[in-house]
Amino acid sequence: MGKYLPSVYESHDLERNYGLPEGWSEKNSGVKRRRKALFESNGYMGARALENALEKASWDLSHIDMLIAAGSTFDYPLPHQSSVIKSELKEGLSHHFPAIDIDSTCLSFISAFEMAAALLDGKQYKRIAIVNAEVGSKGLNSKNWETLTLFGDAAVATLVAYDSEGQSGVCKTMQRTYSEGVNHTIIKGGGNKYFARDYPYDEELFSFQMHGIKLLKMAKRIMPEFMDSFFEDLPLNLTEIDVIIPHQASKTGLQIFKNTFAFKPNQVKENLLEYGNCISASIPLLLLETIEKGELQRGDYCFLTGTSAGFGMGGTLIKY
Amino acid sequence: MGKYLPSVYESHDLERNYGLPEGWSEKNSGVKRRRKALFESNGYMGARALENALEKASWDLSHIDMLIAAGSTFDYPLPHQSSVIKSELKEGLSHHFPAIDIDSTCLSFISAFEMAAALLDGKQYKRIAIVNAEVGSKGLNSKNWETLTLFGDAAVATLVAYDSEGQSGVCKTMQRTYSEGVNHTIIKGGGNKYFARDYPYDEELFSFQMHGIKLLKMAKRIMPEFMDSFFEDLPLNLTEIDVIIPHQASKTGLQIFKNTFAFKPNQVKENLLEYGNCISASIPLLLLETIEKGELQRGDYCFLTGTSAGFGMGGTLIKY
Repeated sequence: MGKYLPSVYESHDLERNYGLPEGWSEKNSGVKRRRKALFESNGYMGARALENALEKASWDLSHIDMLIAAGSTFDYPLPHQSSVIKSELKEGLSHHFPAIDIDSTCLSFISAFEMAAALLDGKQYKRIAIVNAEVGSKGLNSKNWETLTLFGDAAVATLVAYDSEGQSGVCKTMQRTYSEGVNHTIIKGGGNKYFARDYPYDEELFSFQMHGIKLLKMAKRIMPEFMDSFFEDLPLNLTEIDVIIPHQASKTGLQIFKNTFAFKPNQVKENLLEYGNCISASIPLLLLETIEKGELQRGDYCFLTGTSAGFGMGGTLIKY
Repeated sequence: MGKYLPSVYESHDLERNYGLPEGWSEKNSGVKRRRKALFESNGYMGARALENALEKASWDLSHIDMLIAAGSTFDYPLPHQSSVIKSELKEGLSHHFPAIDIDSTCLSFISAFEMAAALLDGKQYKRIAIVNAEVGSKGLNSKNWETLTLFGDAAVATLVAYDSEGQSGVCKTMQRTYSEGVNHTIIKGGGNKYFARDYPYDEELFSFQMHGIKLLKMAKRIMPEFMDSFFEDLPLNLTEIDVIIPHQASKTGLQIFKNTFAFKPNQVKENLLEYGNCISASIPLLLLETIEKGELQRGDYCFLTGTSAGFGMGGTLIKY
């Protein structure tokens, strides 16, 4: 795995810039600092993250059989983000592996991981790169403190390969979409529905809107039944997993998750305080950090899980 | 398969409305008429197309294990289009199958088909719905006759199922991305790069731009080597395939394709004249029409192929 993180943006600076009471961000959103793209685009960040991963793995672009850009923010409405990332890679023009986008908002990494695992056959697809490059900062409403303080920018690249010995891999993935929550997280302006020609820029319309209380109520209700379904045919249960990587949705969201199940100390990882909610990049960033800290060992079971816009809930159990 | 097609928009009406010489569209773009969304959104069209497919198959939503929205135009920047389509389905709120987006622009159907085929295992995934709902008409530049006359709106739904007897399915899929062409087809405005707050609406910036001549040159150069690679390990070659469904990219694009290879009469299907280029919906719409006309029979080999923004080239060989 590799990453690209733009400049640190401390909550006390953000609070000063937008006239928020000092300490509001950490107290209410659980975010002390986050990263913010200044000159960086999604394509730039994604390309740098992938180059970092390739270097760490001692791979080059000739090893890549497919590039998946997984996420919900983008440089251009067209072409698709993966093709932009590919074009910004050093040597990107000399290789012709396919570039495809997958989007299930905050769960895009889980969706992409499932698709990549299904494609990897050791023949046509030996190695697939997944890049989650998110620049959510532009779409934040300066008057909405809850979202303004919560989100951060980040890019993470994950290289997955066919394991002929079957020692590591995806054990199970499950995703569900609960459409009653489709409008609970939305950016209304900028697509066909509120087309930019007919709807001039308006911060409220073109920014991310989140109905936090409705989302938390839905998550609280759905989470137990989702986990029961996920683990019903598995030989281990949620609290027996070695490492749990939850999406860093929000302070309260994480609290509800941790309170709903009887987790062991240090079983559930977190980095909301340092990076905020990085949309689809949160899960792989936390996974990368956990591996770097030595808290996830080869052979361990790791469960990635979270909620998304849509409203979605998902999880994937991997043997690392 | 099912479809939803909005109102007919005749080229002579379009020419009158925009002050084009009579007959310009058919002569230059090869498009006599196309469909244009009036009140319809991507979500509405996609939901109606899927309902049409389900009715024809005598399936209901309880049969669906995943919904993939494949395409490049969308109602909202967030949430992802598949979750919007799902929410607009009759009974969509009562079912919780996952909704995931896949985007490789005009080749999105091929990408989604490959991913769906890889996921279908007869256990967790028995049936997957792919919906290509494209409303490109809003992003057309009224001053650019080439694109204004070329594109049409359409939605097509395809239901794919695990075939336990292995009598039909995907034989091979290959996609390649040639990044030197990344800027040849682009909508610059509306993403993070030219964010709507910083760049007020401007028709040129927020509309689809196409460098037709550069694209045709690339396609002409790449097509033969792509087809050679595709068929090198297969027991049949391109001209032996029963039915060929090319993306309806443009009149000249289709002409180059047909002139490059020695096709048999009626082997290569077309519907550009009636629908224009419907982005990712072109390939499945033409496939659906070919099946409805009885020109594709069970057991036949069918090759879907085309180019995309990015710049991409792709193909999938299926046994129907």
